[in-house]
This record gives sequence, structure tokens and C-alpha cells, in this order.
Amino acid sequence: MTSAHSAYEELCTLFSRLARFDHLSAIGGWDMQTMMPPDGSKARSEALAELSVLKHQILTAQKTATLLEQAQQESLNGIESANLLEMRRQYDNAVLLPESLIEAKSLAGARCEHAWRAQRPANDWDGFSENLSEVVKLTREEAQIRAQAAGTRRYDALLNLYEPGMRSSDLDRIFGDLKTWLPDLLQKVVAKQEKEPCLPPQGPFDLEKQRKLGLSVMKLLGFNFDGGRVDVSVHPFCGGVPQDVRITTRYNENEFLTALLGIVHETGHARYEQNLPREWLGQPVALARSTAIHESQSLLFEMQLARSSDFMKILRPLVIAQFGEQPALEESNFIRLNQRVRPGLIRVDADEVSYPAHVILRYEIEQALVEGDIEVEDIPALWNEKMHSYLGLDSVGNYRNGCMQDIHWTDGAFGYFPTYTLGAMYAAQLFQQVRQAIPNLSDDIAAGDLSALFHWLQQNIWQHGSRYSTETLIANATGEALNPRYFRQHLETRYL
Amino acid sequence: MTSAHSAYEELCTLFSRLARFDHLSAIGGWDMQTMMPPDGSKARSEALAELSVLKHQILTAQKTATLLEQAQQESLNGIESANLLEMRRQYDNAVLLPESLIEAKSLAGARCEHAWRAQRPANDWDGFSENLSEVVKLTREEAQIRAQAAGTRRYDALLNLYEPGMRSSDLDRIFGDLKTWLPDLLQKVVAKQEKEPCLPPQGPFDLEKQRKLGLSVMKLLGFNFDGGRVDVSVHPFCGGVPQDVRITTRYNENEFLTALLGIVHETGHARYEQNLPREWLGQPVALARSTAIHESQSLLFEMQLARSSDFMKILRPLVIAQFGEQPALEESNFIRLNQRVRPGLIRVDADEVSYPAHVILRYEIEQALVEGDIEVEDIPALWNEKMHSYLGLDSVGNYRNGCMQDIHWTDGAFGYFPTYTLGAMYAAQLFQQVRQAIPNLSDDIAAGDLSALFHWLQQNIWQHGSRYSTETLIANATGEALNPRYFRQHLETRYL
Repeated sequence: MTSAHSAYEELCTLFSRLARFDHLSAIGGWDMQTMMPPDGSKARSEALAELSVLKHQILTAQKTATLLEQAQQESLNGIESANLLEMRRQYDNAVLLPESLIEAKSLAGARCEHAWRAQRPANDWDGFSENLSEVVKLTREEAQIRAQAAGTRRYDALLNLYEPGMRSSDLDRIFGDLKTWLPDLLQKVVAKQEKEPCLPPQGPFDLEKQRKLGLSVMKLLGFNFDGGRVDVSVHPFCGGVPQDVRITTRYNENEFLTALLGIVHETGHARYEQNLPREWLGQPVALARSTAIHESQSLLFEMQLARSSDFMKILRPLVIAQFGEQPALEESNFIRLNQRVRPGLIRVDADEVSYPAHVILRYEIEQALVEGDIEVEDIPALWNEKMHSYLGLDSVGNYRNGCMQDIHWTDGAFGYFPTYTLGAMYAAQLFQQVRQAIPNLSDDIAAGDLSALFHWLQQNIWQHGSRYSTETLIANATGEALNPRYFRQHLETRYL
Repeated sequence: MTSAHSAYEELCTLFSRLARFDHLSAIGGWDMQTMMPPDGSKARSEALAELSVLKHQILTAQKTATLLEQAQQESLNGIESANLLEMRRQYDNAVLLPESLIEAKSLAGARCEHAWRAQRPANDWDGFSENLSEVVKLTREEAQIRAQAAGTRRYDALLNLYEPGMRSSDLDRIFGDLKTWLPDLLQKVVAKQEKEPCLPPQGPFDLEKQRKLGLSVMKLLGFNFDGGRVDVSVHPFCGGVPQDVRITTRYNENEFLTALLGIVHETGHARYEQNLPREWLGQPVALARSTAIHESQSLLFEMQLARSSDFMKILRPLVIAQFGEQPALEESNFIRLNQRVRPGLIRVDADEVSYPAHVILRYEIEQALVEGDIEVEDIPALWNEKMHSYLGLDSVGNYRNGCMQDIHWTDGAFGYFPTYTLGAMYAAQLFQQVRQAIPNLSDDIAAGDLSALFHWLQQNIWQHGSRYSTETLIANATGEALNPRYFRQHLETRYL
């Protein structure tokens, strides 16, 4: 440490302190979803909110601003500069909003989400839209403030919270292209699969055996059990901290594939977290690059790797070891099961071919909503129209499984949805590059040797944390910018 | 709220904020003992330490002192005054020590405890005593500062951290009396039991069945599962927060009684926490009164209630429902099993007749140590001498199961041990009062109706939190001050 670094080093101490508080938020949040009995809910929410307020105060204190200014003048090496950039981004994102708006949005979001839990099963659009209108109003205020500071469109300012550097003009181009070929591809795949019989596995599937199966697959995928665990929650997620990654799944006695592939998906997230740069943990530069890059790792594990016919060769014996042989688990049927394409109303149940349609539909609606081009009452009609046009499905009057199905908007998380499909595209592009870098990849996978694949991901993605921008990270890893061509190639190769 | 209350109300807000941080410490600590994988240890310790520092800073800030002074002048009702008194006590206890001493003691304690985990199995007294000397040195500094401020002896100042209002002169009297009759009673009980054959239950006892048995007993004992849970940890404890109480046990396939009675014990702690005054939760006045009162509830559940022959009538069928009949579970043998008295070297394995000897031995040594009358190197000889004199056992050279067996001293928790036996005495006194208040208690228990017992505890202990001093609480509940006579009566009635 030299005195020339003093402001920067004070910032490191400050952000390391914030990371320690984040640690307790993460574990408290994980516990809330997995362990906490119902009566603990109110006290836990209050405790987590109190810590959030504290973190926000520390981050946005005048002292942080002063140190950021001073550190800018200090001579820093590459990774230190990247760290400072991420500190500045966190500070800017946090300091922009007046506390009154943060509080109002947090309250409106909590109210809307809480009511939604009962309104969705009751198909109560009128009740929901009233709460959602308040969330949208406050989200527009937030977007306006952020857009003004960043000199961007309102929607782009929100998108940047999840996907730094991404613009809606990029998304318009990428999604516009997708819309030209995806509906057609989907129709072809569905028609092709209609001719291929596919037996569903016959349960029941003992939950303890499902758990053991999940553990064996996590082991195969390199999950570090000394630095993480798997539990059960209503909505699967990957939480915890890089030193202690907590993934979850949910089991259904009648059907084991959803839970199993869910575990694969979350293990992809987990390995990214478990391999973020250890020597920088606690600093912003050691955080995962972005929401889409995170999703690219889970989708690379789930879609590129685990649903491939190569991987089925090692997955199938693990399944049979737990549940025994049955016709549905015969090799070709097992592959068809895991590559089944069937458009449906529900995003979280969608296959990888129809998934982008769900995302584009939401992207178009939420963008118009944030920009003020439409109002909340316009959502159902737009939803139905797009659902019909992109997936050929009818959702009229079915709010529950239509525009009320997701949690994201209830909390005001506008700008999040596109990252799912960006993640799928990054995953396809990265996996194509892996195939070139590892000529024997198919044989390696079929033989259960995933070490070269994981080494490549470690070298090209995981170890970099937030050292580089998403654009540079992807260009360094694959030699080019985001190119949706690989996603299309992947879908056509696998499904046509 | 009136303006006359403003300082007091500001204090309530401040302590409610501290309680929210305590909540996250409690859950983070529980997780560390029950869920956390090994690689999470360092980051978790750092996160919890960071939060401790923060809480200490908030509590000892000049603003807190000013508000405490101002609130003293405000007109408060009874419970508000009691709350202010507890706030003042927390502040005084925290503000007395210089930060340098807190940090030094925390580091020395962590080092000593960490090394002890390996030194104990290795019987390495020399290594241990070196670390312990540092802990003792810093503990004496702490005791000196606290004693000076309180105008008490050094040991009393530490004792008061766990048992406010208790003095070593009281303990000398109480324990002095115990020493006149307990060794003799112990001998008689052992001689009597030697003539009574007692079959040990034959395992193995399936862990899942043990878990179910534990849950059924917790249910019988009124544990609120909507506001708590039971898990497994190496050292059983009761943690969490009043709204979400987390108890633990550990299972052994060869023997189920230890885990089962451990669950009963922790359920006693849990019900106290679950019934602290709900409308005051988050304020110091809503906290459990003291360590000994807490222990009185767990020992009332375990020793007074669960090991009684009345309770065996309902416990035994639950055991048989899980493990089936066997000779050792026949009624009279089952009672003998649960009332077995056998002096041993290990405190945590001790029965209730020999337990006080373990405590008195430690009390006498730790008092002399804190007062500076002996040094760390004098401990083993004193230990052996007292072990021989109180329990007739030889521990020479057996440091592992002698003076190195407990964790308390490694962390500098001097003054804690007496609360175990005080708890046993309060439990006996309270239960004697319950017997008078509920004439049909024996029949009620044998019939599985514990509602009157729990109502009495709720009315007389649980709902009061820290509203009254221990002395007043016990006098209100039983009509007299702590009277060790009831403990003696209990032991003589049950065991002679």
C-alpha cells in the first residue's frame, strides 16, 4: 500500500464492509425462502429492510463521493481501475434517487407483490392493476431521474441496472431479428415432434431418491459442497455468497425432470459464483458481470450441456440408478423428453425454443409502459394479441396465466426480462466457442469428463468477475460481439 | 406519543433498530452452527463481527448517552421505566470497556477457543494454558473496570453480566449450604440405585424415527412450529429470535434418550422465548430476564417435568410408538433410566444430583482466578482436589475430561457457570409453587394435559420479560426469595 492509493484503499475497506452486510442480507434472505417458519416473516422483513437502509446510507454518504473523486486522481493498475469503475457505478445507481422515492417504491412494490399472491389465483386483474399502476408511476419517476443523469431513454436507464451497457436499440435489433424466424421455426419443430411419440416417465418418484439424484448431478457438474448446499424452496434460486452458495429446487413426486434440470440450471449459476476471483471477494470487481452473463452460465449448463444428447449418455444412468429402468427412460425417448418443445402460456415452464417469445412479449410491453406509450389498462389486450401472434395461443380473460403470471413487475423490476434471452444467446455463442476450443467435446461429455469445459469457462468467464465490460468479456472469450446467429444455429441444429 | 416522551421514544426507535441487527446476528449464528458448509466460515465470522462492531458503535454513541439522560427526566409509566432501566444497563455494560480491550479480548478468546478444539482431544494442557493465561489477563482487566464502576468485587461484576443483581456473597452462602448435604445425598442415591437393576435400551434407533419422536414431544410441550423449528448441531442450543425460535439437538443411533431429553430442555428455553411479551418485542424490556431464569425454564421442562414419573406415563407411549416395545422400555425400568444418578467427569453428561458439584467446583476456581488469588497453572491441582472431594473421582492428568472440557473459559465467559445451578434451584422453587397452585398437577401431567402448567408459567414468568428484577419476579411468583430448600426437597423426594 502506498499513500498515493489512500482514497482507493479507503474505498476498498468501505466496500468490503458493505459486502459483509450483503453477506448477512443474502443468508437472511435465503433462510426466509427455505427455512423460516411463517411467524418469522414480519420481523425478518423489518430486519432486512433496516440493513438495506444502512447499506444505502453508507454507500451514498458524502464521504463515499469524496473518496471516489480522490481515487480518480490516484494511479491505479488495471484491476484496481475496474474496481473503482464498479464502485462508481454502484454509487451512481444508489445516489440518484431521493430516499422518499426509494421508500415509496419499496412500499408500493411490497404491497403489490403481497396482494398479487392472492390476486393471481383469484384471476383478479382489477385489484392487481390498481396496485400495479402505482408501481408503474413510481418506476417512471425512477426511470426519468436515471435517464436524465445517464442521457439515455427511460427504459434504457432501467435496463442498465441489470445489464450495464445494453441499449433498447440493440434489443430492438436483436429481438426484431428473432421475430422474423422464431415463430416459423417453432411451428416446424412442433410439427416434427408431433410425429415422434414421447412416453412420459411413470412415477411416483421418491423425493429422497430425487434428492440423491440431484446431488449426484451437482457433483458431476463440479459443485463445491464445502462451499455451498442445496435445499428446497417454492421458487428455485441461487443465493448465498461466493464462499457459501445456496441453491434451491422443488420436488414433485409425479415428475422428476423439472426438479433435476432446475438443479442443473442453478448449479450453472452456482459454479460462476464459486469461481469468482477469490482474491478480490468483497470488492465490486469480484461480483458477477451482469444478470445476462449470470443467466448465460445457468443456461449453458441446462440447455447447451445438460439437454444435449451427449450429456444424456451420462445423465440417464444416474436417473436409472435411482428409479430403475422403464420404457420412458430408454435412450431415444429420454432425449426426446428433455428436448420437448410445446408452446404454452407459462414462461417458467417454457422450452428453449418458445422461451424467447415470452421474453419479447414482455419486453415490448414493459418498454412501452415505462416510456409512457401505454398504460396499465392496455396490458391485457396487448398481451393477448402478442401471445396469439408469437405463440399462437389464446390468453383472453386468463390473467392468472397471462399478464399476472410473473413476480417481476409487481416489485417494479422493469428491464429484467430481456436478460433471460440475452443469457440464452450468450450461452449459445460461448458454447459454440467451447466446441471449437475443445475438439473432442462431444466425446468428453459422453464420457463424463467435463474438466476441459469447466476450465474454459473458468478461464474465460468465471475468474474475471466484473473486471471487463460485458462487451469486452464476450469479445475476449469468443472473438466477436454478441451475435444471435449462434442461438439460431443451436436451435436449428438441435430441433430441426 | 406525547412530546414529554420524546427522548424515551427516540431510544425505543434506536433499540428497535439494534434488535433488528440482533435478529440478523442470531439467524447468521444459527445458520453457522446448523447449515453452513465449512468454506463459509471465514466470511461469516467477518460478517458477524462487522455487525457486532456496528451495534456496539450505535449503542455506545454519545447520542445514546444524551437520550438516556434526558429520558430519565421524562414521566414514564411502569413498563417504560423498566425498559429505560434495561436500556441503561445495556449501555453501561457496553460503554465501560475501551474498544482496544474489547478487540483484544475477542481476539484472544477466538484464538484460545480455536486452538482448544484441537488441544482438548490432544490433552495438551501446556498449549492451552498459555492461551488461557492471556484470556484470564484480559478478563481481569475487564473485571477491574466493571467492578470499579459498579462498586463491587471483580468477580461479581462479571457475574452481573449474566445474572443481574446476583452477588458472590449470595453464591458463597447458597453453594456453601449445598456442599454440606449434596455429597452425602449423592452417595446415598448411588448406593440405593446400585441395588436397582436398570436395563439399557437396545438400539439401533433410526434417526428419522428419533426426529419424529422429538417433534411429537415438542408438540406435547406446546412448541409453536409456526414460530420456530428444530435442527441438528454438534452442540445443542436454543437460538433465533422470539418470533422464530431455533432449537437444535444431535442424534446418536445407539441411544435416543440424550437427544430426546435435550429436545425437552431446549423446548423449555424456546417456550420462554416464544412467550416473551409480544407487544414489546424489539425493546430490552421484552428480553428474557437472565441466564439463570432462562435455565430455570429449560430445567423445569427437563428435570422437574419430563423426568418425573408422571410425565413418563405420556412420554413412554410416544417412545414405544416409534421404536416398539422392549424390556428396557417397561415402565419402571424406563423411569429408572431417566432418573439414573452416576457421578462422572463430564459436566454436560451429569445427572441433576451430581451437576451442582461440577458447577461449584468451577465457580470456586473461576472466582479465585478472576480475583487474582490463583493463576492458570494452579487450575489442574485444584480441579483434581475438588473433583475428588465433591464427586469422589480422579481426574489427575486427564485434562481433556478435566479442566479442559468446557468452552466457557476459552472465550472468557467467567461468571456464567453458577447460572446453571441457580437455574436448577429456581426451577425447583417454581415447580413447587406450581404444585400448590394446581392441586391436580400429577394427574394432569399423567393425562397429558399440561395447559394449566403452561398457563401458570406464562402468567408468572414468560410474559414479564425483563419487566421486574429476578428477585421481584421470583418473589411475585413464589412468595419468597430464592430458597435452595426446594431444590434439596426435590432431590430427596425423587431420589431417596
